[in-house]
Amino acid sequence: MNPVEWLWHFFDRQDFEAVFPLLHEDFILEWPQSRERIRGRENFIALNKNYPGIWRETITSMVSDADSIAAILEITDGKETVTCVGFYRLKEGKIWRAVEYWPQPYQAPPGREQWVEPLS
Amino acid sequence: MNPVEWLWHFFDRQDFEAVFPLLHEDFILEWPQSRERIRGRENFIALNKNYPGIWRETITSMVSDADSIAAILEITDGKETVTCVGFYRLKEGKIWRAVEYWPQPYQAPPGREQWVEPLS
Repeated sequence: MNPVEWLWHFFDRQDFEAVFPLLHEDFILEWPQSRERIRGRENFIALNKNYPGIWRETITSMVSDADSIAAILEITDGKETVTCVGFYRLKEGKIWRAVEYWPQPYQAPPGREQWVEPLS
Repeated sequence: MNPVEWLWHFFDRQDFEAVFPLLHEDFILEWPQSRERIRGRENFIALNKNYPGIWRETITSMVSDADSIAAILEITDGKETVTCVGFYRLKEGKIWRAVEYWPQPYQAPPGREQWVEPLS
């Protein structure tokens, strides 16, 4: 498994501390939608450890090249399911830069029904 | 350039018909957030050709392996800028399956300020 698979493997098991060695010492995560940046692996792990609820994570798609990994995740606490789409860059074999998007459902706009079918 | 780069290159120039040979004859695109599926390259091109406005597209991040490409795009009509995150699978050198997310801004929830800094 690559470092991103290990990251979500450990988060899925609520084993937040195990993620520490996967992260580069200059780790930075950005959440562009909420205009938030998490600087440093200590902050990232503390935030996740203190996030309310028990969340299970499953990678549903992944693309990777020599130093980058992109993944789609389904994340659920058993009641709510959310999607995360993350782009991760590695440095020295560790996760160095991360950008994560959390797309929310929205209503399909009218006017394009003739080219579209509902996703069941 | 790979087929996804060419796709957005032509869309950026409003040259929608040029995209046709890049798409597999069994092309399917899914927009999970709005529960929409576009089946077939004809529908995909017609929808884009008829979409209101002149939109310019720039790929800002990309990861690719042998048969998959993931990309982040900034898309603007000069007034509004939106982000698209797409995962594309190739078959016979053409774009065969696509899943696109359109993440919207949201308010950062309270309670995590101690681990987070604002993204300027």
